[in-house]
Amino acid sequence: MRKKFIVAAILLLCAGSASVFARESIESLGFSLDTVWLFIGSILVFIMQAGFALVETGLTRAKSAANITMKNVMDFCFGAIVYWAVGWGFMYGKDSLGGLIGADQFFHSPMNLDIEAGNFYRTWFFQAVFAATSATIVSGAMAERTQFKSYLIYSCVISALIYPVSGHWIWGDGWLAKLGFHDFAGSTVVHSVGGWAAFTGAAVLGPRMGKYIKGADGKISVKAFPGHNIPYAALGVLLLFFGWFGFNGASTGAATIAEGGVWSGLAVGRVAVTTCLAASAGAVAALLFSWIWFKKPDVSMTLNGLLAGLVAITAPCAVVSPGASIAIGLIAGVLVVLAVEFIDKAIKVDDPVGAVSVHCVCGIFGTIAVGVWGNVDGVAVGLLHGGGLAQLGVQLAGVVSVGGWAVLVSLILFLAIRMIFGLRVSPREELVGLDLSEHKSEAYAGFQIFSNM
Amino acid sequence: MRKKFIVAAILLLCAGSASVFARESIESLGFSLDTVWLFIGSILVFIMQAGFALVETGLTRAKSAANITMKNVMDFCFGAIVYWAVGWGFMYGKDSLGGLIGADQFFHSPMNLDIEAGNFYRTWFFQAVFAATSATIVSGAMAERTQFKSYLIYSCVISALIYPVSGHWIWGDGWLAKLGFHDFAGSTVVHSVGGWAAFTGAAVLGPRMGKYIKGADGKISVKAFPGHNIPYAALGVLLLFFGWFGFNGASTGAATIAEGGVWSGLAVGRVAVTTCLAASAGAVAALLFSWIWFKKPDVSMTLNGLLAGLVAITAPCAVVSPGASIAIGLIAGVLVVLAVEFIDKAIKVDDPVGAVSVHCVCGIFGTIAVGVWGNVDGVAVGLLHGGGLAQLGVQLAGVVSVGGWAVLVSLILFLAIRMIFGLRVSPREELVGLDLSEHKSEAYAGFQIFSNM
Amino acid sequence: MRKKFIVAAILLLCAGSASVFARESIESLGFSLDTVWLFIGSILVFIMQAGFALVETGLTRAKSAANITMKNVMDFCFGAIVYWAVGWGFMYGKDSLGGLIGADQFFHSPMNLDIEAGNFYRTWFFQAVFAATSATIVSGAMAERTQFKSYLIYSCVISALIYPVSGHWIWGDGWLAKLGFHDFAGSTVVHSVGGWAAFTGAAVLGPRMGKYIKGADGKISVKAFPGHNIPYAALGVLLLFFGWFGFNGASTGAATIAEGGVWSGLAVGRVAVTTCLAASAGAVAALLFSWIWFKKPDVSMTLNGLLAGLVAITAPCAVVSPGASIAIGLIAGVLVVLAVEFIDKAIKVDDPVGAVSVHCVCGIFGTIAVGVWGNVDGVAVGLLHGGGLAQLGVQLAGVVSVGGWAVLVSLILFLAIRMIFGLRVSPREELVGLDLSEHKSEAYAGFQIFSNM
Repeated sequence: MRKKFIVAAILLLCAGSASVFARESIESLGFSLDTVWLFIGSILVFIMQAGFALVETGLTRAKSAANITMKNVMDFCFGAIVYWAVGWGFMYGKDSLGGLIGADQFFHSPMNLDIEAGNFYRTWFFQAVFAATSATIVSGAMAERTQFKSYLIYSCVISALIYPVSGHWIWGDGWLAKLGFHDFAGSTVVHSVGGWAAFTGAAVLGPRMGKYIKGADGKISVKAFPGHNIPYAALGVLLLFFGWFGFNGASTGAATIAEGGVWSGLAVGRVAVTTCLAASAGAVAALLFSWIWFKKPDVSMTLNGLLAGLVAITAPCAVVSPGASIAIGLIAGVLVVLAVEFIDKAIKVDDPVGAVSVHCVCGIFGTIAVGVWGNVDGVAVGLLHGGGLAQLGVQLAGVVSVGGWAVLVSLILFLAIRMIFGLRVSPREELVGLDLSEHKSEAYAGFQIFSNM
Repeated sequence: MRKKFIVAAILLLCAGSASVFARESIESLGFSLDTVWLFIGSILVFIMQAGFALVETGLTRAKSAANITMKNVMDFCFGAIVYWAVGWGFMYGKDSLGGLIGADQFFHSPMNLDIEAGNFYRTWFFQAVFAATSATIVSGAMAERTQFKSYLIYSCVISALIYPVSGHWIWGDGWLAKLGFHDFAGSTVVHSVGGWAAFTGAAVLGPRMGKYIKGADGKISVKAFPGHNIPYAALGVLLLFFGWFGFNGASTGAATIAEGGVWSGLAVGRVAVTTCLAASAGAVAALLFSWIWFKKPDVSMTLNGLLAGLVAITAPCAVVSPGASIAIGLIAGVLVVLAVEFIDKAIKVDDPVGAVSVHCVCGIFGTIAVGVWGNVDGVAVGLLHGGGLAQLGVQLAGVVSVGGWAVLVSLILFLAIRMIFGLRVSPREELVGLDLSEHKSEAYAGFQIFSNM
Repeated sequence: MRKKFIVAAILLLCAGSASVFARESIESLGFSLDTVWLFIGSILVFIMQAGFALVETGLTRAKSAANITMKNVMDFCFGAIVYWAVGWGFMYGKDSLGGLIGADQFFHSPMNLDIEAGNFYRTWFFQAVFAATSATIVSGAMAERTQFKSYLIYSCVISALIYPVSGHWIWGDGWLAKLGFHDFAGSTVVHSVGGWAAFTGAAVLGPRMGKYIKGADGKISVKAFPGHNIPYAALGVLLLFFGWFGFNGASTGAATIAEGGVWSGLAVGRVAVTTCLAASAGAVAALLFSWIWFKKPDVSMTLNGLLAGLVAITAPCAVVSPGASIAIGLIAGVLVVLAVEFIDKAIKVDDPVGAVSVHCVCGIFGTIAVGVWGNVDGVAVGLLHGGGLAQLGVQLAGVVSVGGWAVLVSLILFLAIRMIFGLRVSPREELVGLDLSEHKSEAYAGFQIFSNM
């Protein structure tokens, strides 16, 4: 501290005026505080990788547990590198092709440590963990039957191209941003993009062996494969909830009075409260709805209900009241149960963990919720606040265009991978489990397990 | 950054004077920093939910593992909503009935984003996770035999009423606060309230089947049911330790020079150090004491010893020295071993995870420790610092009155639930385990388990 | 807030001048922000204890799982207390014996809460969790065969003496610091010290029973004991990655413009980015290298590759570019695979989790990397930046002297423990597993396990 006082004194003398000194220090303190804030947000989003890994591992079978954790670890690792190499440039580089894509700052590697570099670094880290979130959503939907190397290829493409391009449209000042599309923390940018890719992947891949069995009467019976470790799934959900406070909270971008005179620090608390209440309401709704419908308080439905509330509040978290956040959570919690049943039984796409219902369906709902309950920058744009249909229209335009982009490119990608490398393991490998067939090792050496239920 | 400089310049011109500008910005920066600090504290307390879930799951049997994680998740979700609806108002609303209860701000849902709302949001979030901590303590003591729906009802009442009312007495400027009762982070407010409710619940419920067996000689033998996953319990304890730094640390309420000229930022470091040392000393004492007594370094006693140190330092963490914190931790570590044995063998209340010994017994001890070692706001109130018996008397008054309140209301509550809905599952359901009987699913599908040991 | 404004107004009047008020508040705000920053870093490093516990538990056998988690919990608890008692004084006390050791502030227990105490508290906490990291590295290498009490004795000595003394040389302004040795966050100070002690311990202890079996032909076959829980290991690695952001990030020591006019806040973002990229590159390299070499994407090699990247970037994280951090990570990822094979098969030291390869080998590499790619305080000291061999020489001097110190003292220590108390359990106890033999309990009561594979 003594050194600090001396430094301050010297700066003071140099500046020649107390007020200049004070102002400069306030600027630098603000920059430092915002850096700390973005850092907190970034590491919270980072730990969501552990949350996803645990949820997906817990809700699938023991015989592929090592494989699914490996997928979750490696999609982050490959993703971080390709997002540094090209993804960041596509998303936040100079706006090109009329708002369609960014196009500079590829392989950006500044050595000097000035304010510009400091700002790049802190922002890149925050954006990189978001990109990784979008990528990792897919692993659950494609669990227990996808080739490891094919998954890694997909993972590089979503982090390098799919996520950054639609991200550019919304957060990189692209064409949707210019239309007034509001997606505070990424119900669409992150979750529905990941959710659409997950849906496409699961559909192209086909269901796990034994999932849909045609009986002698021609009727198809749907088999449930229970997850092998519910405490993992619950711990994963709690880690996701934990990380989501940073995901939504630090999407304020700052804690100080930042760009445009907006005091981001005031929004931090609101975002925490709406995130907390929507998630809670989502779990409560899914619990009660499943209890009534299935006559039991269903564990995995409830856990997915909590996540559904989180995904749904992600877009509107900064622009709705606590009361509205509870409404949004309750609806998301019911919606996710309906969506899981619909996708599993009606359209028969095998999504082992319910990723599509959580991230795609509730991501879309959350994006629309802005147009229903939203009060953006003091303007009551939400339908229920008398804001009319304008914002709702823009939100729908975003949902459709981003969904179209994600489905189109991931469909081409998965079909190309299937043609060139193969997308699915052999039936024998699937029966044995991906741990032994892909990695020549077991997740639980020494334990007695009946995995082929 | 460029935009920020322009904003700063404009504000400067508007203000017409450098010093006014500087002062205002210091105010807003301080508010933002305190918001970030409370946010950090809040999420750390939040993740303690995962810690509790893991400790309780790990120390009980596999056949009810999904049920206990569900309880831990859902008491938070229900708790957050009812604490928003009415709990906050009872605790921090306008002081009424002569310091007995708060009474406004129910269903508080501000839409504007001014300083008052920002302050409400950040404070509510911090308080809500504290309320959830108190509620979740009970699930462990009532594990493996409580009906799920009855637990949820209890959980709503503690978060809506029991915790907020005694909380109001102490932290809501109620009658105990006016007496000078000191409970920095909640040894009494949070832990002993939860601990007393846990004791009441476990006593009303009765022991698990097979816990106390009368032999042919009329002597009762006490059976130990070992926990099914020690790494879960250890991970849970480490997560609780991790979260406790926020629990105690952010109970400074601010990091800046805040209310009354007190510089909270100076206390942050002290609280971290005393928390770290007391927990460590608690584990060391329980390890050595159990090693001597039982001739083995007992795993679950040691883990509970660590938690005992944490609970005990919670009240005095800001007002004792590092040396005193070690003394407090050592005593708590011995105390918890004695209490577990006493409750289990002497009074025969079946508390599967030792929650009462940890939270109630050590919560009381920690509250009293303020009167023994404390130096509150520069005044040596502790007996050992020559402070006499005055503070000790106030601390005891708080312990007794809060304990009386918690026991009384939770007793009425549990008896009413038992009468109306039933509190306990049937013997057959208990034998099968709560996962299958309450949720129709297993925690570890595919694993070979002998749960009925 | 209202109270705060009044305080501000009073202070303003007292000071008699707006500029003095503003300056003082900027100072105190900076102190508070730096305290928050160090707190964040400290708790992130703390949670690495859970990461180590899970990695080591997951990669070893089920029959000693409770024992290894106990070791990880207790080395922190004993370590914190002895580091407070004497370790801190040796490391950061007044420089004595010509830069060899610090020598005051033993049992430091300030009661007053002034700036000096506040600074001590926040710094001690940060340093204590670093000391604990160094200590806990050893438990993995000595897993499944070490007596519990002997491990605790070792653990106290490394935290009290071994780590603090070499730490003093580098971070306590001792002789290596004066030579210009650069180890930003502790590739040498923390990781290679722990790694050398781990190597010494594993060598003195000898391999686990059945690890190296001489065949009828006189050839020794090396048996692999697969870890019993890969999701634990993966979760542990993600928690370590998470915590490492604080480990490296908060090694800036501040977020503000601090000592010497250096703006630490600018470095925070860079450190996060280089840490993220090096870890990712380490995992990618180990995955691809093991895939080519062993014809399978090896799970534990990949996880260790991620950790290898983290250890290697620890020293140079603040002084290299993102591009260089990827190069460092890639090399570390290959290096760790080679080192694991070399130690396991060539020199036949049984290190169950690969701790020596990760922390010692990659700690050395990371320290040297500063001399290859480094740009310290604006000076391009790295060989590849034309900085010549000077820095490289200093880095090597540090590697050799610290390694010599750690090996020498830990060798004496382990031999003395072996002589006085015994270091290894009996063959029968090892066969049964340390959980039953040392703690009279099981980690997974009720589960069917074949542990003696």
